Amino acid sequence: MALLPVQLALRYTFGLAPYIGESVMLIVMQSHATEEQVRAVCERIESLGLRAHPIPGAARTAVGITGNKGEVDTGALESMPGVVECIPVSKPYKLVSRDVKEENTIVRVPTPLGEVSFGGEKIGVVAGPCAVETREQCFAIAERIKATGTRLFRGGAYKPRTSPYSFQGLGEDGLKILAEVRDRFGLGIVTEAIDNESLALVEHYADVIQIGARNMQNFSLLKRAGRAHKPVLVKRGMSATLDEFLMAAEYILSEGNYEVILCERGVRTFADHTRNTLDLSVIPAVQRLSHLPIVVDPSHGTGRRNKVLPLSRAAVAVGADGILVEVHNDPAHALSDGPQSILPNEFDQLFAESSAIAAVLHRTLN
Amino acid sequence: MALLPVQLALRYTFGLAPYIGESVMLIVMQSHATEEQVRAVCERIESLGLRAHPIPGAARTAVGITGNKGEVDTGALESMPGVVECIPVSKPYKLVSRDVKEENTIVRVPTPLGEVSFGGEKIGVVAGPCAVETREQCFAIAERIKATGTRLFRGGAYKPRTSPYSFQGLGEDGLKILAEVRDRFGLGIVTEAIDNESLALVEHYADVIQIGARNMQNFSLLKRAGRAHKPVLVKRGMSATLDEFLMAAEYILSEGNYEVILCERGVRTFADHTRNTLDLSVIPAVQRLSHLPIVVDPSHGTGRRNKVLPLSRAAVAVGADGILVEVHNDPAHALSDGPQSILPNEFDQLFAESSAIAAVLHRTLN
Amino acid sequence: MALLPVQLALRYTFGLAPYIGESVMLIVMQSHATEEQVRAVCERIESLGLRAHPIPGAARTAVGITGNKGEVDTGALESMPGVVECIPVSKPYKLVSRDVKEENTIVRVPTPLGEVSFGGEKIGVVAGPCAVETREQCFAIAERIKATGTRLFRGGAYKPRTSPYSFQGLGEDGLKILAEVRDRFGLGIVTEAIDNESLALVEHYADVIQIGARNMQNFSLLKRAGRAHKPVLVKRGMSATLDEFLMAAEYILSEGNYEVILCERGVRTFADHTRNTLDLSVIPAVQRLSHLPIVVDPSHGTGRRNKVLPLSRAAVAVGADGILVEVHNDPAHALSDGPQSILPNEFDQLFAESSAIAAVLHRTLN
Amino acid sequence: MALLPVQLALRYTFGLAPYIGESVMLIVMQSHATEEQVRAVCERIESLGLRAHPIPGAARTAVGITGNKGEVDTGALESMPGVVECIPVSKPYKLVSRDVKEENTIVRVPTPLGEVSFGGEKIGVVAGPCAVETREQCFAIAERIKATGTRLFRGGAYKPRTSPYSFQGLGEDGLKILAEVRDRFGLGIVTEAIDNESLALVEHYADVIQIGARNMQNFSLLKRAGRAHKPVLVKRGMSATLDEFLMAAEYILSEGNYEVILCERGVRTFADHTRNTLDLSVIPAVQRLSHLPIVVDPSHGTGRRNKVLPLSRAAVAVGADGILVEVHNDPAHALSDGPQSILPNEFDQLFAESSAIAAVLHRTLN
Repeated sequence: MALLPVQLALRYTFGLAPYIGESVMLIVMQSHATEEQVRAVCERIESLGLRAHPIPGAARTAVGITGNKGEVDTGALESMPGVVECIPVSKPYKLVSRDVKEENTIVRVPTPLGEVSFGGEKIGVVAGPCAVETREQCFAIAERIKATGTRLFRGGAYKPRTSPYSFQGLGEDGLKILAEVRDRFGLGIVTEAIDNESLALVEHYADVIQIGARNMQNFSLLKRAGRAHKPVLVKRGMSATLDEFLMAAEYILSEGNYEVILCERGVRTFADHTRNTLDLSVIPAVQRLSHLPIVVDPSHGTGRRNKVLPLSRAAVAVGADGILVEVHNDPAHALSDGPQSILPNEFDQLFAESSAIAAVLHRTLN
Repeated sequence: MALLPVQLALRYTFGLAPYIGESVMLIVMQSHATEEQVRAVCERIESLGLRAHPIPGAARTAVGITGNKGEVDTGALESMPGVVECIPVSKPYKLVSRDVKEENTIVRVPTPLGEVSFGGEKIGVVAGPCAVETREQCFAIAERIKATGTRLFRGGAYKPRTSPYSFQGLGEDGLKILAEVRDRFGLGIVTEAIDNESLALVEHYADVIQIGARNMQNFSLLKRAGRAHKPVLVKRGMSATLDEFLMAAEYILSEGNYEVILCERGVRTFADHTRNTLDLSVIPAVQRLSHLPIVVDPSHGTGRRNKVLPLSRAAVAVGADGILVEVHNDPAHALSDGPQSILPNEFDQLFAESSAIAAVLHRTLN
Repeated sequence: MALLPVQLALRYTFGLAPYIGESVMLIVMQSHATEEQVRAVCERIESLGLRAHPIPGAARTAVGITGNKGEVDTGALESMPGVVECIPVSKPYKLVSRDVKEENTIVRVPTPLGEVSFGGEKIGVVAGPCAVETREQCFAIAERIKATGTRLFRGGAYKPRTSPYSFQGLGEDGLKILAEVRDRFGLGIVTEAIDNESLALVEHYADVIQIGARNMQNFSLLKRAGRAHKPVLVKRGMSATLDEFLMAAEYILSEGNYEVILCERGVRTFADHTRNTLDLSVIPAVQRLSHLPIVVDPSHGTGRRNKVLPLSRAAVAVGADGILVEVHNDPAHALSDGPQSILPNEFDQLFAESSAIAAVLHRTLN
Repeated sequence: MALLPVQLALRYTFGLAPYIGESVMLIVMQSHATEEQVRAVCERIESLGLRAHPIPGAARTAVGITGNKGEVDTGALESMPGVVECIPVSKPYKLVSRDVKEENTIVRVPTPLGEVSFGGEKIGVVAGPCAVETREQCFAIAERIKATGTRLFRGGAYKPRTSPYSFQGLGEDGLKILAEVRDRFGLGIVTEAIDNESLALVEHYADVIQIGARNMQNFSLLKRAGRAHKPVLVKRGMSATLDEFLMAAEYILSEGNYEVILCERGVRTFADHTRNTLDLSVIPAVQRLSHLPIVVDPSHGTGRRNKVLPLSRAAVAVGADGILVEVHNDPAHALSDGPQSILPNEFDQLFAESSAIAAVLHRTLN
């Protein structure tokens, strides 16, 4: 095959403008593609206002594409004669990346009992019931988890439920109960918002705004969270790739809120022995690419009470910046709790064993 | 092993009340579980206000649970001595089920050019660009698709994008362009709503309200769609099971809107040769369980232009009640179109071949 | 950032030697990587006997790697300071690729009733029971499928079963029954081999040697099949990517047997409404990259009798080069048949509808 | 709906015979199924030589099926009028189950330096290169890993490779090098067999026979391993469910070899930030159902060197009975090692941190 001029300036310029990035593509040509076919591909690219960078080789030619700031119509290019495929090269996230900020972001959540931090040497602990049911329930659980040293209380007032006939949460009444928990026990509050209306209320009553897995790509909600003045905990979607997970955080940062905590809570796979497959390898993967803290929810991550303790230990051991655990108090009236909640005395053990493992890594629970 | 009284009334009573269903569970005991352990499990179940139905056997005992209207805390039960596991038996959906309505629901969408129906002998066709960009673009495409006999036009005014830096759609201006398409060409309009605010506008301007895959479990949005007075097309979430897919529709029906069209658009798997894995087997599976019509989106379902035509043919062949296809007009300015859009002349061929295959099944495109 | 000499010869030379390919890698550096870090990466690459091709850009540098003929230790490189990640660029397959052979391979299977071809305009049909049970069973089914015009009979004499306590097949006795089917009805025989011993026997008795999904990466068996003198039908593994699927065929071709038919039979995903998720998009994907024919097994692909007919129609509509269908004769003694077998009269309908759809694509069943 | 006689004897009798189990099914009828349809289903079941157990309810009837020792043709039953679906209830495994043996199996591997045990309080450690390349390489690595206290050496002489053009291992020459490692350093040997021929040699030279993930359902090989007189380490297949994983072990036990160690090595999912998704929740899941020990391979489980250390810590923390780690010695000639191998000094740290975490669980590495 005749060679085109051998010269390349495949530029990784996507970091130039802080917000709007170029993406870089490679077009791989067939080994028997003609010079004319390569030229046609280059012309098509240039006609789109982009730059084409032919990369000839002994056996085949590749063509780099730069200059595009949105999506490239790879379909149009893949359909051209002589083309094998298009390969995206650059990553889409900016603000969440360590390219932009090398050192860890430490998210500090103030509580009456003192600040709880995520992302530094301390490991944050959040515990509480799946759903806020009654003041008595919350107080009973709050008392027990506070006794371990835990200072962040979780509990849902708005519950995204698969069935419209299931309990949907107490709404603002639930938020008021949570506020009472803060007043009475000094615990900070982490609770979920499910739409713009509930987010405004959660922002008012709580200390950390949770975005659930099912809303990880509810971009309207993410933007609203990006304009909130409280830290946001974003759960990984059920089948979110690492890139999509980071892009969800990017949405929030791009609106000005830099206080974001990521949360692995299990992904959906073929495996049927747990409700979800907890993907602990995403912890070091996120920590490598992003400066944001990442915590683990072993309760939703497994969906099975008897797996919460071992997977909590594993989460701390793998290097997570926190854990988020469902605890309920009264097994005799456990109907409204998920099958993954543990009992207060199981939580005592969980806290103790997690502390001991954290110490191996020279970290402490907070 | 000593036997407990052999008698069972494992009742499948979950259809009794039209809206609020009982779920039925089976607790499987270990083969060497003691009589006492079985009794303890039964007592625990009864103490929760439920009914326990011991089902003894030569090798082991199972215990049926009835009477529960919410979730059972299977965690509490699975943790008891002698228990192997809990197995859910009943299905959660009601209104979407053929148990409630045996005959097919036919959703009829009125357009200036006449009614387009989904769910009967006719197969509905929807075509148009990924995003509404300009009036000229929409008019050009509308003209071409109308020429084939297609009477429903799709195009996004609100675009859920993975990146906050990508084009997010023209918003209400886009909806106005779509309304002009209806006025000028007589085509009905299918377009997506992404939150409560946009849904109100889409309901005003469009003929079918689309709920995207990423919002399939945005329950707040589903409930709002259930109060709308236009048909709703719900796309299957990226990793939604058949049950979850039907439950999303159940949310809409439970609010009073029975005009729901389901849409398979590919699911997320390990496979990397297409953007999503189009799951055509879900078509006969849905048709077996539900009376609602189901259509296929081969454009998002594959993410590759060169696979849209073959998978459209396959969708019609498998028995889908409609297809939803992305078509763009001008390859020279295709940047904002997804890599899965096909050209108008490719759509001509798609329509013709799909028609011929529909005829084999004694159906016609409409 | 200071630039290194801007010049690249990222060569796609992996097609140079017909068998042993170079693979091409890209190392992406962090945007704030120092010139020294880039140099260290290049030196490491060169010290491995490879060539490094720094590709500087305004925001970051990438480094192309060529010259390697095996696996590159990307772990060693990814661990170096300043490195973000490694991206493989080239594809590993050679002989199965259209790069090596542009026109379709047509596999011709001779039978007493005439040749059946796969990969040309004709669509091959293979039908028969899951397992060979008795002579009577096989004769009864053979008679029925022959009546439709089908000339290839399938039936397992060696059955890979999940449980050691399930029926494992009749072994050589089963092969002899199959040989009688050929003698009496003139049908060609397709049957599975599960190890080197059974492969020798299958090669002797049958017309097409089947390699099952669970053995798609049993490389010892693939090599043995590559030395056989009969066509080989290779089923896609339960979680095989397109690349791995093609590499399994590559193993067979690399030993000298070019008569290979690929078979999609469903992959494993989270979806639970079918036993496997039939991935019909792999048909056009394979046909784009490889010259080998590809057929579809809708019986294993869905695992449900009531889905075999619609998915067979879809397989023909998508462009498959053949279908492989399980048919059993006697529902009253169906215990040993899989739940996915259809009845002879259902097969009649399947054959008729598939023929009609093939005609739309100007193809005929054979 | 009229009720059938309310009486059930849904017997979980599948444990009666030690080897050949009955499976139990439930047929769920439609809520509007007629009495006649239920009767027809029962008659069909009885005509198959099975027992039918109608379970009437207020809203619908279910029918239990017992007495079957193989597979039930659920397809035939699901196709009958009035039937919604079939649900399997019983589990297929016997010998690997805690039902058969309550206490943990402790697999003891003798080495010149003393016994290494898996399944008791001690946690077994296995380390070494991906592939045996040279005597020098193996000796250098053996020396380093022995220094930590590790007494089991791993290294592949037969390598299952995706590409036929990749290094396939040294074969028996490799096994001889491994035997020299045992002689010189006193380390026990763990190495893979890929077919019946290599298994006989591995059984001769090594101390533990490894069955790789790609062969987890190579039943011919599993049976041969069941007749071997050395312990067998079985890796979980890339998309194996918990049931299939246990059934692979069941194959080995059913042939008489009870010395089986299970190994989690990552499963295939949509996630693309690691080569496989390490499923640590399978450890407590296996330990709940089976008496067999289970270890973790974090090297293949992640495919990335920088994730081996954190995931090894997590494996010990979750309660694994051992870890299997790839270590290579010479980064300057690392080409033939996988990208997941760690360096000896990284292994020193891994051993030390894993020991410290084991101590939290009152266990010790051995």
